[in-house]
Amino acid sequence: MASLWQELQEKWRNWAPILKVLSVLWLVLAVFMAVPWVVLILEEEPDAQAFATSIGIVLGAVVVSWLATLRAEFYLKPGQMFLVTTLSWVSISTLASLPLVLGAPQLSFTNAVFESVSAITTTGSTILQDIDVLSDGLKLWRGMMQWLGGIGIIVMGIAILPFLKVGGMRLFHTESSDWSDKVMPRTGGIAKATLSIYVGFTLVAMLAYWLGGMLPLDAVVHAMTSLATGGFANSDASFGAYAEQPHLLWLGSLFMLMGAMPFVLYIRFLRGSRLALWRDQQVQGLLALLLVVIVLLSGWRMWLGTPPFEALTHVTFNVISIVTTTGYASDDYSTWGALAFVAFFYLTFVGGCSGSTSGGMKIFRFQIASILLRNQLRYLIHVNGVFTTRYNGQPITDDITRGVVAFSFFFFLTIAGLALGLAMMGLDMTTALSGAATAVANVGPGLGDTIGPAGNFAPLPDAAKWLLCVGMLMGRLEILTVLVLLTPMFWRR
Amino acid sequence: MASLWQELQEKWRNWAPILKVLSVLWLVLAVFMAVPWVVLILEEEPDAQAFATSIGIVLGAVVVSWLATLRAEFYLKPGQMFLVTTLSWVSISTLASLPLVLGAPQLSFTNAVFESVSAITTTGSTILQDIDVLSDGLKLWRGMMQWLGGIGIIVMGIAILPFLKVGGMRLFHTESSDWSDKVMPRTGGIAKATLSIYVGFTLVAMLAYWLGGMLPLDAVVHAMTSLATGGFANSDASFGAYAEQPHLLWLGSLFMLMGAMPFVLYIRFLRGSRLALWRDQQVQGLLALLLVVIVLLSGWRMWLGTPPFEALTHVTFNVISIVTTTGYASDDYSTWGALAFVAFFYLTFVGGCSGSTSGGMKIFRFQIASILLRNQLRYLIHVNGVFTTRYNGQPITDDITRGVVAFSFFFFLTIAGLALGLAMMGLDMTTALSGAATAVANVGPGLGDTIGPAGNFAPLPDAAKWLLCVGMLMGRLEILTVLVLLTPMFWRR
Repeated sequence: MASLWQELQEKWRNWAPILKVLSVLWLVLAVFMAVPWVVLILEEEPDAQAFATSIGIVLGAVVVSWLATLRAEFYLKPGQMFLVTTLSWVSISTLASLPLVLGAPQLSFTNAVFESVSAITTTGSTILQDIDVLSDGLKLWRGMMQWLGGIGIIVMGIAILPFLKVGGMRLFHTESSDWSDKVMPRTGGIAKATLSIYVGFTLVAMLAYWLGGMLPLDAVVHAMTSLATGGFANSDASFGAYAEQPHLLWLGSLFMLMGAMPFVLYIRFLRGSRLALWRDQQVQGLLALLLVVIVLLSGWRMWLGTPPFEALTHVTFNVISIVTTTGYASDDYSTWGALAFVAFFYLTFVGGCSGSTSGGMKIFRFQIASILLRNQLRYLIHVNGVFTTRYNGQPITDDITRGVVAFSFFFFLTIAGLALGLAMMGLDMTTALSGAATAVANVGPGLGDTIGPAGNFAPLPDAAKWLLCVGMLMGRLEILTVLVLLTPMFWRR
Repeated sequence: MASLWQELQEKWRNWAPILKVLSVLWLVLAVFMAVPWVVLILEEEPDAQAFATSIGIVLGAVVVSWLATLRAEFYLKPGQMFLVTTLSWVSISTLASLPLVLGAPQLSFTNAVFESVSAITTTGSTILQDIDVLSDGLKLWRGMMQWLGGIGIIVMGIAILPFLKVGGMRLFHTESSDWSDKVMPRTGGIAKATLSIYVGFTLVAMLAYWLGGMLPLDAVVHAMTSLATGGFANSDASFGAYAEQPHLLWLGSLFMLMGAMPFVLYIRFLRGSRLALWRDQQVQGLLALLLVVIVLLSGWRMWLGTPPFEALTHVTFNVISIVTTTGYASDDYSTWGALAFVAFFYLTFVGGCSGSTSGGMKIFRFQIASILLRNQLRYLIHVNGVFTTRYNGQPITDDITRGVVAFSFFFFLTIAGLALGLAMMGLDMTTALSGAATAVANVGPGLGDTIGPAGNFAPLPDAAKWLLCVGMLMGRLEILTVLVLLTPMFWRR
């Protein structure tokens, strides 16, 4: 008996710090929930009750966890970091769904979790219809969930994944990624600066959208979901509601792009390194890719008869939306012809920069892969040649190469496996493949009649929605963070 | 002037040995053409004339090349091997189309080249309709082209690609891959043994098909296209013509599988190593994969109401056909439901064993990739761990790893690029993706209404057919062999 008791104590000693960290994050969630709650009270909407109950439940969980872990320290070992990272995204996604279950849309549990996982992971796929007539509080909540997810991704990308060496992210290992001493690291400065920039950009976007002619609430929500590269909009037509106001589409393009840049570079810029952004190889790669794709697709649209300015506006907006993994649509680009259809399928995989709010494979992995491939071709010609491999001035070590390659393989395997699961539930190949890709890359819309840019995820079977939730979370966690937890070796440790 | 003359002489000195080797291969082609010619003469078909003319043209090319290179030696430098390998497949595919242009089907140049590239690369996609009523000579020629391609692939896989270190094939570097001294290597013994086995297996298959009830000509052609994992059949219904004779489907499954095994292992078996086949990790992997897929898909078919034996027979036949990159169809498996549709799309990529007649990514690359991925997960947990990496008893060196990774990336990039090109010509996503995959993996049928297992490649636009020809040849040459030729570095050398 004594040994069982000791064993349980031992286990608890491992889990208590994890629960303690999670409870802090849940507290943040509760504070966020208070905002739509206040709005709903002011507008005298009955939904207010749902938010009050949700806040109560979340706070209850916080208090219980806090009391249970009073004596635990805020200290995590590297292995526990994998767990806490995964559990924080899973638990927050689930808790954030409470107002959707309890409130006016009265979603089924499946639909509510799908919507909030899609929000927190900043994917932006939706099962909601008649979004235009939702209460202001709920519209706000959808935007705030994405905005919260957005800052979570930046922090994870700057401070956690490089430390865990997941998927070649070690490339972005900075002093702020060093957790070796304590769990709350010497990142105070960088964390604060990042948050300030994120808040600042969002305020600028709100103002710009509002001055551009959006209603105040729409300006607020779209500002949050643009910077978070989330993609929730306040209309079933997504950004198509502003199709006749091209200046809003151009503003949207700008803010999505700002969200997809490495936030560390903004800090460097503010600290005086005025060329930090332009000198970064990842930024150069993203802009070059966008330029090429936009020129080609706009040319294609014009050749098919669309007026030049209209073609350029909509191609730019939708290409940036998909590449940055935002997922707004200003038009049903799946009707732009077979070339555009396949091109948008490919663009789903790309993603923005590491250390931004965007998802996908991310530009740096394509760049490192292309350096490796070029060297391999040279090697076939000059067997004894030695070829330089540097990226952004840093040597590409074997460690990073293996991380990038492993990530790429697992990324495609995850999508392929997910698509097979979706096909088993009867989804056709285009829906299954594009649905799996859009979930894992955290983009938003898929392709095909159901989940395409003009469609909605509501008609999918429940089991498919759960599979997509798993895909969205795995994609958000850069896949390997989750896979590590599934190995027996992890639990033996 | 003198220097220009010298420069030309220098260039000629480089090209002459290449032309000399090619002319030998063309002579083999001319000898092969004589067989259907004799058959057509005996059957008093007017097509005989087309073959006579074709033989004349090919022999003319052989004689001219031979005279022009009288003084050249049969010696090739490693760089020239890339050229000669690529040029031999391109030139033979083109010359083999002559009887199709000149003969009874009177195909357009595009269609004729597509059909012969598809044949020589053992892909098996066809643009011919009413195959059942073709002359015996042409049916025979289609089978013989694939059979000739089949032995070419084995020789290339055993003796050339490992030497060129393409795509991790160095793993299969044996004494027979050593070309360092002379162009016609000490492979005499192995080459002869391989050829004997290939001929022997084909004769066994002919006899078995004939005893099983096929007409003699059908037995001959199907034996050749089974062992070559080519997939040309003598009917528009492909092997569906024998759908009511399950024993023929089982025989077909067996012969396709025999063609997809490493031929070196048969030699080892004959030399006394009775367990050579079963102990080989690649063979184990192929059989395990087939077993799992066949059990799952048969179960799925039975669950949907197909009688057990029928389900097992057709699933086994079509899965083996696609995985071995043969490309026969006994049934329109694209109507077996969404799961089967997506599963067959994935199976298109797999391929058989290295050193066999089959194409695709090949089993060993999946196995090496999975070893790498497993180790990478372990590495995330134990940062300082050292993990063994052996395959078939050999250490997986960095060299091989890089080769496998580069091949995998280029393989998918080639397919993705090809699919984009096909989409530009108006093909829908399913047709474009599956068409590109089936071409590069040298399988045969794609998916969708046009090029699916019940379809035909004839309705595609000409430009799409040329793109697919490029894809088939690149796939057959393991991609990197061709890409090397496209680098400026290769030509500077």
